[in-house]
Amino acid sequence: MNWKTVFKNLGKIFIAEAVMLLIPLISAAIYGEDTYLGFAIPIAVLIALSLPTFIVQAKGEEKNIYAKEGFAIVAFSWIAMSLVGAMPFVITRSIPNYADALFETISGFTTTGASVLSDVESLPKSILFWRSFTNWIGGMGVLVFVLAVLPKSNAGIIHAFRAEATGPSVGKLTSKMGRTARILYAMYISLTLLETLLLLLGKMPVFDAVTTAFANAGTGGFSVRNQSIAAYNSLYIEIVISVFMFLFSLNFNLYFLILTKHAVKAFKNEEARAYVLLVVFSMFAIAANLVYSAKSLFPTFGEALRASSFQVLSLSSTTGFSSVDYDVWPTLSKVILLFLMMTGGMAGSTAGGMKVSRLMILFKATAADIRKMVHPREIVTIKLEGQKVEDQVVNNVRVYFIIWVAILILCTLLISIERFGDFMTNFSSSLSCIGNIGPGFGLVGPACNFSGYSAFSKIILSLEMLFGRLEIFPLIVLFSPATYKK
Amino acid sequence: MNWKTVFKNLGKIFIAEAVMLLIPLISAAIYGEDTYLGFAIPIAVLIALSLPTFIVQAKGEEKNIYAKEGFAIVAFSWIAMSLVGAMPFVITRSIPNYADALFETISGFTTTGASVLSDVESLPKSILFWRSFTNWIGGMGVLVFVLAVLPKSNAGIIHAFRAEATGPSVGKLTSKMGRTARILYAMYISLTLLETLLLLLGKMPVFDAVTTAFANAGTGGFSVRNQSIAAYNSLYIEIVISVFMFLFSLNFNLYFLILTKHAVKAFKNEEARAYVLLVVFSMFAIAANLVYSAKSLFPTFGEALRASSFQVLSLSSTTGFSSVDYDVWPTLSKVILLFLMMTGGMAGSTAGGMKVSRLMILFKATAADIRKMVHPREIVTIKLEGQKVEDQVVNNVRVYFIIWVAILILCTLLISIERFGDFMTNFSSSLSCIGNIGPGFGLVGPACNFSGYSAFSKIILSLEMLFGRLEIFPLIVLFSPATYKK
Repeated sequence: MNWKTVFKNLGKIFIAEAVMLLIPLISAAIYGEDTYLGFAIPIAVLIALSLPTFIVQAKGEEKNIYAKEGFAIVAFSWIAMSLVGAMPFVITRSIPNYADALFETISGFTTTGASVLSDVESLPKSILFWRSFTNWIGGMGVLVFVLAVLPKSNAGIIHAFRAEATGPSVGKLTSKMGRTARILYAMYISLTLLETLLLLLGKMPVFDAVTTAFANAGTGGFSVRNQSIAAYNSLYIEIVISVFMFLFSLNFNLYFLILTKHAVKAFKNEEARAYVLLVVFSMFAIAANLVYSAKSLFPTFGEALRASSFQVLSLSSTTGFSSVDYDVWPTLSKVILLFLMMTGGMAGSTAGGMKVSRLMILFKATAADIRKMVHPREIVTIKLEGQKVEDQVVNNVRVYFIIWVAILILCTLLISIERFGDFMTNFSSSLSCIGNIGPGFGLVGPACNFSGYSAFSKIILSLEMLFGRLEIFPLIVLFSPATYKK
Repeated sequence: MNWKTVFKNLGKIFIAEAVMLLIPLISAAIYGEDTYLGFAIPIAVLIALSLPTFIVQAKGEEKNIYAKEGFAIVAFSWIAMSLVGAMPFVITRSIPNYADALFETISGFTTTGASVLSDVESLPKSILFWRSFTNWIGGMGVLVFVLAVLPKSNAGIIHAFRAEATGPSVGKLTSKMGRTARILYAMYISLTLLETLLLLLGKMPVFDAVTTAFANAGTGGFSVRNQSIAAYNSLYIEIVISVFMFLFSLNFNLYFLILTKHAVKAFKNEEARAYVLLVVFSMFAIAANLVYSAKSLFPTFGEALRASSFQVLSLSSTTGFSSVDYDVWPTLSKVILLFLMMTGGMAGSTAGGMKVSRLMILFKATAADIRKMVHPREIVTIKLEGQKVEDQVVNNVRVYFIIWVAILILCTLLISIERFGDFMTNFSSSLSCIGNIGPGFGLVGPACNFSGYSAFSKIILSLEMLFGRLEIFPLIVLFSPATYKK
């Protein structure tokens, strides 16, 4: 491991986070709140932390840089960012307990949106701003941000960018990584601004519109209202949010294709087609199930479809906003929602879950293996988006799936050691955290929160959120003894 | 596909089942029951079905025989055996509905032990005998039986034997498959007889002792008492059954090693060590959890350990006998039991589940892949029992795991279409059926049965039991369109 490269790049991340903390600091001034210190102290800490990393002059750092250095940069920077990012909550006594504040921050950065707070409306606005802003930062990723603003990028940070992006493989938009990162952020900011404007048109207060757009863009799902989106009681707002939950769970490459006048190619995208099919099918299946089995709650198909559409988009995009309490829905609806929590959105989006393309690769590779079993001498190739999927990619996706399921089971087991939740609560908590969704079922359902878990369980769930957002391998490399041996 | 070979071998299986049906027919005579026709008719049907297969003289059948022919023989024969094996229940009106009877028969042959019957004690003894006997037949497998009794074995049946055996790869005991099959059956019969004797010593009635030993040997778990093993209320009987549940979930190769004076090698077996560790750890973890969280049910650690030991062995061996209602246990205990239902026993045993060796290969292969990620230029080999695990085996195990989980999820979804069970009920039903365990949790808990499900759900669960017992690939090949194309 080239530790100097890792160490040096961490400094850039610290500065980036310090810059980001300036924004809630400004919001504190605008709203006249005495939360200055809550942001000023972590900014000072970040600057202090970054100084030694700039003193280290890593010679020959561009040599011998592998994916593992990228993994290490991502893993260390996300953990460090979360440790510092939790400080504003503790300093302002918004969340006095540091373990709770860390859970909330990791939940924010990983775009999970699981909360330990039962009354968010009582918190200072600048703190709520920071909370929603962590969703936005985590969505596109801080490494992408650093890559976008740096004049020159080095090999370490490019590997880290790959490790932070979502999906089985990273599609380059342009030949230069720095330019790719700038285009991604430009699209991300534009879409966020557009949503803010549309929410304002629906008469949402400015503060709510900005923070909701942040949480929505990152597919995080933190809300500034106790009742989440149900608080606004507006069909227009529900529709705007539904549309943007869908838009942010699409691969950003599609927007680039449309912008560069390759719209036909975008509409032919296999993963997008499969995702849309899955979402639309789920909406109608749940709506039918609701009308048939929960007639008292949803007397008409229209009402059922409104509720099912919002929840399907919220959970498949892994945002986690809620417009109704889906915990009381019939079993079939719940199982479909649990399945969508596993699949998640598209690769290259801000959504969590396993990603649709991974499941497509798994499906195609399994079908190919069965074909080989029946016709042993035939050569079978797997294609996705018209391109051959290399054996190495298939293998990585399989390993990813196996570890993902293993973590899901192991963490369900670990958080069951305490006596808090039943099986459905604990299983859905675990799934919600590794899938970066937010709410689950039972005691962590949309009407509840995660505050009932012990500190131990919160740490397990926080780690699971990081595993989910960073797509397993960076943290595995970090925790692997092989990393620290010669 | 060499259909002639497949067709010809099916005839042998039909004759084998006809021979096996003679035994409950004799028991009907012994108990003086008027259930003769219930067994005579299916015997006649089997003989009629086998006739055309003997007329077909497959020329050159030994050529071009691949694993797929073995898969097809196994898949067709298990389905045909079940269709005929359900007839005694229907003809004697013990289970008048054919779909229910088929569920019960597939549950028996696949050694699942899930039942649609709420009052087994009211049934004729010869019918209960046949029911428990299906557990015994399915445990070692009917192909192994055919291979054991045939003077000469052909390539088709040897491939089928491999497909019917459990675990990632089949260890040959001797160079000749016929001899291997005879040794396996000799050990199977000896252990069953030994258990029957020990149960008789515990003052169990003869009929109960024989049928319990059958159900135990196959790790099936059908009981002739409504209360399962709790009905006997005897610590001695519980201990005997616990010990044999453990013994039948071990790889039969271990007994062969001990018999041929290689006991040291048997005790060094990696899979056996991991399995014992898992079982002992689970027993103590659950006992501790019961004493801590369910003090009213289990006031002392001794009582908790007695209950936990029996249930751990029952579910890890995938037998499914119950001595208490574990559905009321705390969440941690339930999650551990659910995990044991997934892992199952050892490869080469009569147990179900994924098998411990598969999970060990998954774990070792994943660790090796992570090592390669950190040290890209290192060559990492995976070893199990001192031997290199080939890449093809690793790949097969990964594909197996992925399809297993996919079937588990898909069937949970399909049986949730009706309004019968909540998530825990349906998920544990699905897991119980693919793992060939028997009881689950909630409405299919140890105090309940599967009669509440619709015929559609019962068919789904029956298929899942077959997928579990035949370890996926035979049925996948059967249902794959590629099998029927040139």
